[in-house]
Amino acid sequence: MKSLSQRGQAMPSSPIRKLVPFADQAKAAGKHVYHLNIGQPDIKTPDSFMNPIKNLDMPVLEYGPSAGLTSLRKKMVEYYQRFDIDVDYEDILITTGGSEAIIFTLMAICDPGDEVIIPEPFYTNYNGFALEAGVNIVPITSGIEDNFQLPPIASLKEKITDKTRAIMICNPNNPTGYVYSKKEMLALRDIAQRHDLFLLSDEVYREFLYDGETHTSVMHLEGIDDRTIMLDSVSKRYSACGARIGMIVTKNRSVINAALKFGMARLCPPTIEQIGTEAGIDTPQSYFDEVINEYVERRNVMVAALKEMPGVVVPMPKGAFYLVVKLPVKDADAFARWLLTDFDVNNETVMVAPANGFYSTPGLGKDEVRIAYVLNVEDIRKAMHILAEGLKAYPGRIQ
Amino acid sequence: MKSLSQRGQAMPSSPIRKLVPFADQAKAAGKHVYHLNIGQPDIKTPDSFMNPIKNLDMPVLEYGPSAGLTSLRKKMVEYYQRFDIDVDYEDILITTGGSEAIIFTLMAICDPGDEVIIPEPFYTNYNGFALEAGVNIVPITSGIEDNFQLPPIASLKEKITDKTRAIMICNPNNPTGYVYSKKEMLALRDIAQRHDLFLLSDEVYREFLYDGETHTSVMHLEGIDDRTIMLDSVSKRYSACGARIGMIVTKNRSVINAALKFGMARLCPPTIEQIGTEAGIDTPQSYFDEVINEYVERRNVMVAALKEMPGVVVPMPKGAFYLVVKLPVKDADAFARWLLTDFDVNNETVMVAPANGFYSTPGLGKDEVRIAYVLNVEDIRKAMHILAEGLKAYPGRIQ
Repeated sequence: MKSLSQRGQAMPSSPIRKLVPFADQAKAAGKHVYHLNIGQPDIKTPDSFMNPIKNLDMPVLEYGPSAGLTSLRKKMVEYYQRFDIDVDYEDILITTGGSEAIIFTLMAICDPGDEVIIPEPFYTNYNGFALEAGVNIVPITSGIEDNFQLPPIASLKEKITDKTRAIMICNPNNPTGYVYSKKEMLALRDIAQRHDLFLLSDEVYREFLYDGETHTSVMHLEGIDDRTIMLDSVSKRYSACGARIGMIVTKNRSVINAALKFGMARLCPPTIEQIGTEAGIDTPQSYFDEVINEYVERRNVMVAALKEMPGVVVPMPKGAFYLVVKLPVKDADAFARWLLTDFDVNNETVMVAPANGFYSTPGLGKDEVRIAYVLNVEDIRKAMHILAEGLKAYPGRIQ
Repeated sequence: MKSLSQRGQAMPSSPIRKLVPFADQAKAAGKHVYHLNIGQPDIKTPDSFMNPIKNLDMPVLEYGPSAGLTSLRKKMVEYYQRFDIDVDYEDILITTGGSEAIIFTLMAICDPGDEVIIPEPFYTNYNGFALEAGVNIVPITSGIEDNFQLPPIASLKEKITDKTRAIMICNPNNPTGYVYSKKEMLALRDIAQRHDLFLLSDEVYREFLYDGETHTSVMHLEGIDDRTIMLDSVSKRYSACGARIGMIVTKNRSVINAALKFGMARLCPPTIEQIGTEAGIDTPQSYFDEVINEYVERRNVMVAALKEMPGVVVPMPKGAFYLVVKLPVKDADAFARWLLTDFDVNNETVMVAPANGFYSTPGLGKDEVRIAYVLNVEDIRKAMHILAEGLKAYPGRIQ
């Protein structure tokens, strides 16, 4: 058999995926598995998004423009205005999912061997995108004991080398649910400016803010328009993960133009989902109010249940729909597997995502898991009961 | 303004795109432009493809599997059987367009700095994909005087170095319309085997075969299953260019698994268009018969008209819907621009693609253009009349 590339071999498998065969086994054995491991919401995609797709009158499903449908880009301007983000449609490039937005941005601003500083834990797929772009991720560690706030700027400064091209955050954060404060955003602005860096912000969870939390977008920062790049996606906003529509937003037209050249090579993002997205922007606020209320209740039920569990450390997430918790176990990976293979309550169990895969520094997060609150409240109650019982019964539990 | 990556700067703009501003100017001035420059067919997308999209009953537009919908992969097995291509559904990876199929394949088999040998002229976007993957394209030149057949194997052998990982062809060929013979395919098999190379074949124009031409797929070659990778797309087959659904097909499961890791990072291809594609596979043969008849007539009308033009060299294309012709001009790029800016017949003109962008060797193809026969016969007649008059009137014409 012919050998493959080192790049292909180095490409990381998601730590969540590693557990999938065990979940499949559990299901094959008749066990019900509550999936707290993935960010697939159960929320209905709004009719506003789906209706124009069902009513499609398009004799030829043609190539769209490489930058995305102009009508969608213009409609996105209106959408961003609702968040006091003032951009022109030419500041917006439509991509095939947030994934492509990140890859195109990394390729536009970094050459192979360049470095991007990212607070860890971070969304695991950043590792894959970085590897594809030949970029090295340099982590700065946020601690669970600090509620995953931005690490001290001093520790960030230490990581800056002549290879550093950008700082990248996810805000609201996946996996921690942390929402960066205005003060933290201003500190990031200052350091980006002082050290001549780009500042990238993945803001796909913009709508998912709780307890009156306010969101400071990277696009709100003044005086660094040529450095700030916002990465976006409709996957979570409209519960349209299968649509694969994302955005790069920046006032630095050189970045847009460079990213567009990568976009031209792949011709265009999918047309039909762009049509859904454009119409989805008119989804009534009541849809989001309901969704947010639902997530707040889910989060509250989950956090309350977790806090009842002895030895579990639970930071309060303020956004997105994940939280990272510390468990009284030595190896959360083994525990997550054990829940699938060796444990059940009335033939039901739970699947959680071991958090070590969200850290870049080896050894970190070994006793942490990411839990998504994407199930209904009733299922969350049941899942939390199972997790509590599992922790009691687990032979590897730290006393 | 912050500087961008060298990679972004090096990323090639399509030679066709460079003319777009001139076409826009012509249109703004009220001129009608016949587009012979792009591969966007005017053929109706079949109802079989669009109907299930219109009848979509999917409360949540969820993530699909990273490898593509299993039902689509299984249906593709049935599709390929019609072409005597015998594969298992696990030999098929669904990608976001043929573009992604090529990028994932290059990244799975090549490391940065590796080389892939491709007969030129070739589809210009291969340059962009290669740059993204850090791969160097090494061209071997097919000549218009030889009807763009495979260059002598000896010239191919000369190009093989210790960096060479693969030979890649497009068959039927874009931009030349050439269809590789069984003998040529066997020669490619032998050299791939002897020199331990992968053999990649972009076969998106499989259906577009004329004059009883037969197609030898790379998947028909015996004895090199671990080296052959077929790249596919539904864009042209179902006139669904905006769908962005492609495929990697290979019996080398290590390649599938490596490509799948890149696929996992980007989560999944667009769901709705996969549903259309799956249903599209049941498009009745009569649809394709009609389409092929239409293209044969278009080609015949176009080739006959071109042959009437003094000094024009016209190889007969046997597949796809392009041809590359040699014009009696020194600089086809300048001529194509002139047609847009300085020429019209009754306020109408034509847009063609200068062929130099399809060659990797500098200086080649300067007197050639690619012409797509994607307009109806009446429009092709008009467009050919304009081209003929343009060649007569062009000040830069070679006598």
